[in-house]
Amino acid sequence: MSTGLPMTVTDPALPARVRIHEVGPRDGLQNEKTAVPTGVKAEFVRRLAAAGLSTVEATSFVHPKWVPQLADAEELFPLVNGLPVRLPVLVPNERGLDRALALGAREVAVFASATESFARANLNRTVDEALAMFEPVVIRAVEAGLKVRGYLSMCFGDPWEGAVPVERTVRVTKALADMGCDELSLGDTIGVATPGHVQALLTALNGAGVPTSRLAVHFHDTYGQALSNTLAALRHGVTTVDASAGGLGGCPYAKSATGNLATEDLVWMLDGLGIETGVDLAALTATSVWMAEQLGRPSPSRTVRALSHKES
Amino acid sequence: MSTGLPMTVTDPALPARVRIHEVGPRDGLQNEKTAVPTGVKAEFVRRLAAAGLSTVEATSFVHPKWVPQLADAEELFPLVNGLPVRLPVLVPNERGLDRALALGAREVAVFASATESFARANLNRTVDEALAMFEPVVIRAVEAGLKVRGYLSMCFGDPWEGAVPVERTVRVTKALADMGCDELSLGDTIGVATPGHVQALLTALNGAGVPTSRLAVHFHDTYGQALSNTLAALRHGVTTVDASAGGLGGCPYAKSATGNLATEDLVWMLDGLGIETGVDLAALTATSVWMAEQLGRPSPSRTVRALSHKES
Repeated sequence: MSTGLPMTVTDPALPARVRIHEVGPRDGLQNEKTAVPTGVKAEFVRRLAAAGLSTVEATSFVHPKWVPQLADAEELFPLVNGLPVRLPVLVPNERGLDRALALGAREVAVFASATESFARANLNRTVDEALAMFEPVVIRAVEAGLKVRGYLSMCFGDPWEGAVPVERTVRVTKALADMGCDELSLGDTIGVATPGHVQALLTALNGAGVPTSRLAVHFHDTYGQALSNTLAALRHGVTTVDASAGGLGGCPYAKSATGNLATEDLVWMLDGLGIETGVDLAALTATSVWMAEQLGRPSPSRTVRALSHKES
Repeated sequence: MSTGLPMTVTDPALPARVRIHEVGPRDGLQNEKTAVPTGVKAEFVRRLAAAGLSTVEATSFVHPKWVPQLADAEELFPLVNGLPVRLPVLVPNERGLDRALALGAREVAVFASATESFARANLNRTVDEALAMFEPVVIRAVEAGLKVRGYLSMCFGDPWEGAVPVERTVRVTKALADMGCDELSLGDTIGVATPGHVQALLTALNGAGVPTSRLAVHFHDTYGQALSNTLAALRHGVTTVDASAGGLGGCPYAKSATGNLATEDLVWMLDGLGIETGVDLAALTATSVWMAEQLGRPSPSRTVRALSHKES
């Protein structure tokens, strides 16, 4: 193919710059059936950083019994900790925070649910019990000078409960914000959201006192909606977008919840819109092709497939 | 999964109703390696109509030497012609128009290119030679009282030429409009467009005297951009969107140009936005699952996969 694609045509209603929060090494690899070798994970993080991703969620300090795929967090983190990028790690509880602090992590994330059903399935707690569990984690992390991100899952729909009312998501998001999370990532864990719903939730959050500058969006491509929902969020002023290199990952507990938004599909759109990300799409695609080889199956990202097919 | 998904949240900036121009039987099946039996094609059209699609492009009266997959147009068209839906057919030239008229077709479409490279590859003509070939087709069809659609391919990018300047696409679109085509379908044949480019082209066409009401969009999902580009077009006021049931089809002459926008992925978004289409998503998905069985491979539509996976 000739160069110059995508052609860049800006839209003044959209942000000039977006920060991509890359979740592939954590959210992607935690769903692999067999654990990826620690050295491969470290190389994955290194290549993502080299491709220009400024934030790479590296791993999770969760109990190995629950996510054996990430049981090597203690070995992995020191291998990547010197990289000149932000390296948040997931911490499910105080024990996880202790492990992260001991290794010098400077950013952590907690993972809450907007719905009772998923809180029960994922954490075996009610939503409020889960929030109570996160409170000392967030408070101690903030006291230690760490940045803290709060993930909200099932913000739009839930596999057991169906459509999730906007007010319910607002309540849990606000609780995490008030607790001290400086960034809230709104997850469409089962990929059912559409652009009007996205706008409505963002507007309601603003109305509840959570400014757009503290909000990130985390869309799944289960129904092919991730990128149009992202566009709606950008139009609302959101400038932090979660994505997973090569489209790795999904949600192990939610049936049919496959397909994080692929970082490459996102970067193609942002490049076309002239929105700066700092990411080199060719280097990122090469990284996902390499990772797909490690995993032994092709990337589900359409952009990765199109660009790598062209080279062959 | 529970009912009530996607949750409906409207956006007053978007149209209240969209007409989906279903291209699966023609644009989808013309790319199949082996021809689908005529009876299966007829049943496909019938099921699409029963699922609520009001416009189903049925076949192409192209020379069988070029598209052997659709060599049965004479047999197929009478089998579906009584259905209470619009049934446009593609006609590449006057001979094709004669064949369509002889069978009582009431809507036809011609297929032009915005770029010289693709006009040469697809039609073995320059862009202007192709327009000259279409002119008597369009004039005679209009005189016969037919609706005429003009397809424009490579409106955003071309596999040989790269990015396509907006003015070039405007010139060819305007020529087809002036010739008498009442609808112009803007094709992103290799799937490279992004939302700003879409807005820029639509705005430029309006400036050249082609109103949005005469424009349709035809996006491909090669880079995962089809639905976000559709959203941008809806925001501009476009109310006719081309899509292919199950995501069938692509372009046989353009490398890596796979993936028409899947009608199901489009309907999921439009349902969520409360935009009326008349389509029953469950019936449409069942149709694509059935068609995938006929073709012996799974649908690439993410919505079809998610909904059919859930039922199993």
